[in-house]
Amino acid sequence: MTKLCNDPARFTEDMLAGFLDANARYVVGVPGGVVRAHKTRPGKVAVVIGGGSGHYPAFCGTVGPGFADGAVVGNIFTSPSADEAASVARAAHSDAGVLLTTGNYAGDVMNFNLAVSALRSEGIDAHYFAVTDDVASAPRGEEDKRRGIAGDFTVFKCASAAAEDGVDLAGVIRVAEAANAATRTLGVAFDGCTLPGADAPLFTVPAGRMGVGLGIHGEPGIAEEEMPTAAGLAATLVDGVLGDRPDATEQRIAVILNGLGRTKYEELFVVWGEVSRLLRERGYVVVEPEVGELVTSLDMAGCSLTVMWLDDELEKYWTAPADTPAYRKGAAAQPSPNGQARRIAETATASTTPPLAELADDDGRRGGRLVARALDAMAAMLADAEEELGHIDAVAGDGDHGRGMVKGSSAARDAAAQAVADGAGQGSVLTAAGKAWAAKAGGTSGVLWGALLSALGARLGDTGRPGSADIAGAMRDGYEAMIRLGGAAPGDKTMLDALLPFVDELDRRVANGQAWQQAWRAAADTAIDAARATAEMRPKVGRARPLADRSVGTPDAGATSLAMCARTVADCFTLTTQGDN
Amino acid sequence: MTKLCNDPARFTEDMLAGFLDANARYVVGVPGGVVRAHKTRPGKVAVVIGGGSGHYPAFCGTVGPGFADGAVVGNIFTSPSADEAASVARAAHSDAGVLLTTGNYAGDVMNFNLAVSALRSEGIDAHYFAVTDDVASAPRGEEDKRRGIAGDFTVFKCASAAAEDGVDLAGVIRVAEAANAATRTLGVAFDGCTLPGADAPLFTVPAGRMGVGLGIHGEPGIAEEEMPTAAGLAATLVDGVLGDRPDATEQRIAVILNGLGRTKYEELFVVWGEVSRLLRERGYVVVEPEVGELVTSLDMAGCSLTVMWLDDELEKYWTAPADTPAYRKGAAAQPSPNGQARRIAETATASTTPPLAELADDDGRRGGRLVARALDAMAAMLADAEEELGHIDAVAGDGDHGRGMVKGSSAARDAAAQAVADGAGQGSVLTAAGKAWAAKAGGTSGVLWGALLSALGARLGDTGRPGSADIAGAMRDGYEAMIRLGGAAPGDKTMLDALLPFVDELDRRVANGQAWQQAWRAAADTAIDAARATAEMRPKVGRARPLADRSVGTPDAGATSLAMCARTVADCFTLTTQGDN
Repeated sequence: MTKLCNDPARFTEDMLAGFLDANARYVVGVPGGVVRAHKTRPGKVAVVIGGGSGHYPAFCGTVGPGFADGAVVGNIFTSPSADEAASVARAAHSDAGVLLTTGNYAGDVMNFNLAVSALRSEGIDAHYFAVTDDVASAPRGEEDKRRGIAGDFTVFKCASAAAEDGVDLAGVIRVAEAANAATRTLGVAFDGCTLPGADAPLFTVPAGRMGVGLGIHGEPGIAEEEMPTAAGLAATLVDGVLGDRPDATEQRIAVILNGLGRTKYEELFVVWGEVSRLLRERGYVVVEPEVGELVTSLDMAGCSLTVMWLDDELEKYWTAPADTPAYRKGAAAQPSPNGQARRIAETATASTTPPLAELADDDGRRGGRLVARALDAMAAMLADAEEELGHIDAVAGDGDHGRGMVKGSSAARDAAAQAVADGAGQGSVLTAAGKAWAAKAGGTSGVLWGALLSALGARLGDTGRPGSADIAGAMRDGYEAMIRLGGAAPGDKTMLDALLPFVDELDRRVANGQAWQQAWRAAADTAIDAARATAEMRPKVGRARPLADRSVGTPDAGATSLAMCARTVADCFTLTTQGDN
Repeated sequence: MTKLCNDPARFTEDMLAGFLDANARYVVGVPGGVVRAHKTRPGKVAVVIGGGSGHYPAFCGTVGPGFADGAVVGNIFTSPSADEAASVARAAHSDAGVLLTTGNYAGDVMNFNLAVSALRSEGIDAHYFAVTDDVASAPRGEEDKRRGIAGDFTVFKCASAAAEDGVDLAGVIRVAEAANAATRTLGVAFDGCTLPGADAPLFTVPAGRMGVGLGIHGEPGIAEEEMPTAAGLAATLVDGVLGDRPDATEQRIAVILNGLGRTKYEELFVVWGEVSRLLRERGYVVVEPEVGELVTSLDMAGCSLTVMWLDDELEKYWTAPADTPAYRKGAAAQPSPNGQARRIAETATASTTPPLAELADDDGRRGGRLVARALDAMAAMLADAEEELGHIDAVAGDGDHGRGMVKGSSAARDAAAQAVADGAGQGSVLTAAGKAWAAKAGGTSGVLWGALLSALGARLGDTGRPGSADIAGAMRDGYEAMIRLGGAAPGDKTMLDALLPFVDELDRRVANGQAWQQAWRAAADTAIDAARATAEMRPKVGRARPLADRSVGTPDAGATSLAMCARTVADCFTLTTQGDN
């Protein structure tokens, strides 16, 4: 929800003051809104956009060369007054007339038309145009009743670029009309937004549901559906917009996937991948798409898809440069592709497989199969435990531990299976698994687990059947490799706090003559106890040290997952190789 | 929360594919991340940034001319692997070496240092640098243990601009070190973020509280405080950052007020206004500040303040142009101010007062006082009813009705009081009130109320005591002015559905000889009933017509407020002027 304000009644004024201060090189305040910091040049039509605020960067964020000359700034979700619209238009006007344009809302239409009357009475050649891109707000045949939503952006952009290009007022009006006639938008919302100072959202969408066609102020939509996947949403949006395709249009389109505020860039890009594929499949050529927040609704969750069908004129204006506080578009980049990058991308999947089978004997290959089986069990266990580990990690870390362990262990499992298929012994299987874990897991723990497995592989080799002392020694090697890499020490609340007691206990029991499988099981129990005991520690290294630490009372996620893996391996060997040493 | 994904396990891959598709003119994908679409030129140091994803536009959104040559893209909140970092660096590298740089997190430090080793073994002159700007993550004297948060942006920007400028690797490293040494950030969080596919937030902040110094992945902060006002937050951030000012620094500073995802631009601008004022008060000169989302944390609510103390070199690199998918900075705008706009801003508050007193007689002035008293009562009533009206309006409209009525009626009250003080009669008081209401309220209803009051004023004039028929006729005039302006008709579910029955009943009773005060009270009751009856209507005009309408069952907000005003006026005249006609 919207949280930050001083006096809610002065929110818009405060916002505008801060906006002007931050963007003094672009804009200057006038009664009712903002105009460019540099006077509209003689002979150039002024384009004044506007409407209520709460939609940043719409509308004041797009005032500047190549875009609007001024923006009228109403209160949150409220049309500015006629006086305010006239005041901004007066300030933006040079000598060639002014186009005032907003989305099609009754308040804006009324106030801006009154402003036009006032301006004309002063001898200013003024005209008003309302954008009507929202296909959900009225059926075909009643396009003039539709609301203006993210399609405001394409229409304002093209009209502004035409004005920048020196087109006269009649021509700018014609471009605005053409852009509007060629633009369609469909939006969805997953959750409402909260007005500054309010303690409840303006509207709500039931959990797990999606409002289709919901307006950017929560106005009713056309349907409520179950929350779809990103691919499902892309299909809904593409079908909805293309289903309203204007007549006699081209296959070249400008496209906006617009976030409403809380639906973030990462999610938008996931949806965009699907939208782009669907549009290409239908023969469309997408010209300089925009994926991001262009017309928001405070912190509303949701997004919209806008398509503007392009002719040569609209394409020219859509791709023209602009330089405004929130939207800048430069000269097009040079066309020569990055040959080096391309080459690497193309060859990266090809890799050479060493002749693993030549290194191993039958015992080694049997050991390789056992290692692969243990890694398979670990990967399965970690997949089940992912969420739990993430929650534990979230207390002191960044909550990524479960995900990293799943990615690492499944990559290690796959690499081990491949090595086994290639006839590798235990050493090469472990080395391949370690390399894959480090490469795929990411994070601190990925590197450390990779080092542990690689150290085990280096010690155990591909031939013969390792004895209990070999295995205990290999685990000690792995521990030491981690110490070298990580810079952490036992007591720092890391995975080492489970690994060291494990290695010590394994060593001690094996030295006392116990078979490694039994010693491993007992050592795993020790590791579990040690991981639990990390709950009483404060982290010292390996992550930023918090001055106030919430993590006391929660065990370390890395120590916990290590102990769980130790136990899984113990189970695996107890079940499959009991007494087999 | 993060809502949109396909397979959560493939979220990052899907996101990256969509990002690359949308930004093909800037970037190309390579294993592990992205590089510029155009090869790094010979002789130029490559700058490769990175870390986990979930922070867009950090990091892949800032790859392009003037900024990074490549970005390594880890999973959400997870360090990429060493292989991935090396792969991107290899693709970005030309022939002059490569700087790899991330925020200071253990996983990134480990993996990127391993990548540097691998690159050096291939003969590539590689170096790694970790950003440590977060003052909350370790105390003074232990700056090297601090996390990197939004200060990543200033450091990456300056190092990249130096590389673009042709500085050699040692020089680029020195600039990165200098930028980092001069950069401090303090962040706050109001609410947690949700990982894709998760059904609970990664962490939470108690309602009404604020976590100070909370990391961008929810890592613990230094304190939890009561949620402040925007001004209070600005003071906390400014004090926190300036309190850690590096030694021997200048008064010129680069500043970022960074939104974490759910704290939107409008709120950031409100905070920025206070931050800017505080910095100026302390003698600082703010150079090209950035207010917006530069380093996010999915949909986390919160923000951070970053200050980089500038010397000539850092200022040159901070202000240098850049052209990337999410961050573009052009040549500086020309310095000549907008003289026309300035003039209007300066003169707009001066207005001429007509010699109102000359128009009125004693009866008219008495009527003016009564009108002002009625408007005062209406404004008080509407201030109390603001929230209720907003809720009613939110069902079918945009929830702004209460706010608009309060703004309009209070402006009308003030204008009326001024007119009375100027000796105006009832007509001029009503006209002044109507003009103020229309100018200040915004929205549809502001214009309509303004027209209603102005029509009343025109009919009643400034002299004499209006009779009951005059008052009924004036209300009829007001109704007709609204019809002309609004394009709506009775039955469209607007305020007209209360006003027409009111006017009809007032007319009928006055025609039958009743005094206007009694007739008004009965007509107000009729209006209340009529407003209630709008609950059964569907809106037809005056707002986009929803295909599925949730508003049936809820009365129209405009009709409701009109009826409430009618009753307030009735109470006012019943109490003050009973039998006074």
